[in-house]
Amino acid sequence: MLTRQEVRDAQARAAAVLADAGMVLTAAERAEIEVADFGLSRLEEIGLEVVVYVNTERVCAKELVLFPRQTCPEHRHPPHGASPGKEETFRCRQGTVYLYTEGEPTPNPACRAPGDDPSAFTVWREVVLRPGEQHTIAPNTLHWFQAGDEGAIVSEFSTTSTDELDVFTDPRIGRATVVQDE
Amino acid sequence: MLTRQEVRDAQARAAAVLADAGMVLTAAERAEIEVADFGLSRLEEIGLEVVVYVNTERVCAKELVLFPRQTCPEHRHPPHGASPGKEETFRCRQGTVYLYTEGEPTPNPACRAPGDDPSAFTVWREVVLRPGEQHTIAPNTLHWFQAGDEGAIVSEFSTTSTDELDVFTDPRIGRATVVQDE
Repeated sequence: MLTRQEVRDAQARAAAVLADAGMVLTAAERAEIEVADFGLSRLEEIGLEVVVYVNTERVCAKELVLFPRQTCPEHRHPPHGASPGKEETFRCRQGTVYLYTEGEPTPNPACRAPGDDPSAFTVWREVVLRPGEQHTIAPNTLHWFQAGDEGAIVSEFSTTSTDELDVFTDPRIGRATVVQDE
Repeated sequence: MLTRQEVRDAQARAAAVLADAGMVLTAAERAEIEVADFGLSRLEEIGLEVVVYVNTERVCAKELVLFPRQTCPEHRHPPHGASPGKEETFRCRQGTVYLYTEGEPTPNPACRAPGDDPSAFTVWREVVLRPGEQHTIAPNTLHWFQAGDEGAIVSEFSTTSTDELDVFTDPRIGRATVVQDE
């Protein structure tokens, strides 16, 4: 749960990060930046700021802003209907992103599991993305990612986004942010 | 037809435009920037510089660089196999882009048809895109676009790109650039 003020503050901070990087948003886009705390109420540690550029029945593109060391928690995009699930490519635009996916665990990974439940982070194959580097995640593949000390901007190119279908490893997580009225 | 030197020069120029805008490419990406003259051998007027970030069986993302007043000529993405055709969203990142699509012709459009055959430009509904503005083109819809006097950077988010299937209004156009050996 976040207060409206917390949402507004995070929106302004994310908009400033993008503006400093020369990425122009319209006023409407700035006002609609999604601030996700994943229901865990520890936004600085586990959270994500999202600009959805387009999300049609076929294609989705987003800009993701991660504050320093902020983590998008572990999840996968399962098959649904005729779709094998969402396929997504993460392209780092600024900062460093540590992406963890299924596969042989990386010895001495750069990140620690954030939050209060390390068991909610089960995949440890590390892919380090610096500006200009990218990685494609196949559908239904567990993944999570954390920004380095400077934060990060990540472009996401994907099939249709259906956030409500995402399966998170932490059973407490709800994808929709609950905003507390003040 | 372009000489290898013309291709290299256009690649370097496009890479510089992107770098100046803070958009980081890897060395491999810089070396593979596609320079399209559409077979018309008048690159400055009718041409496009393209960085393909990803092009899977489902999703494609590209960065397009247009030099000042450079035009991507009129074409459409027809249905093929089970696909209704490529759907694409153009998001202007820098400069101004004048996009022309099917519909009521705009009186006094900002652009003139480039090249030597005005009949190759048949759709004149003008959509002006400035940084942060975007437009989605439905499959099989005729469109063309021209940069303003400062040139432009355009992010393209789309379904799979199958350039070889594109249908151009100018029958002389070939999508693949022929490079002349020196």
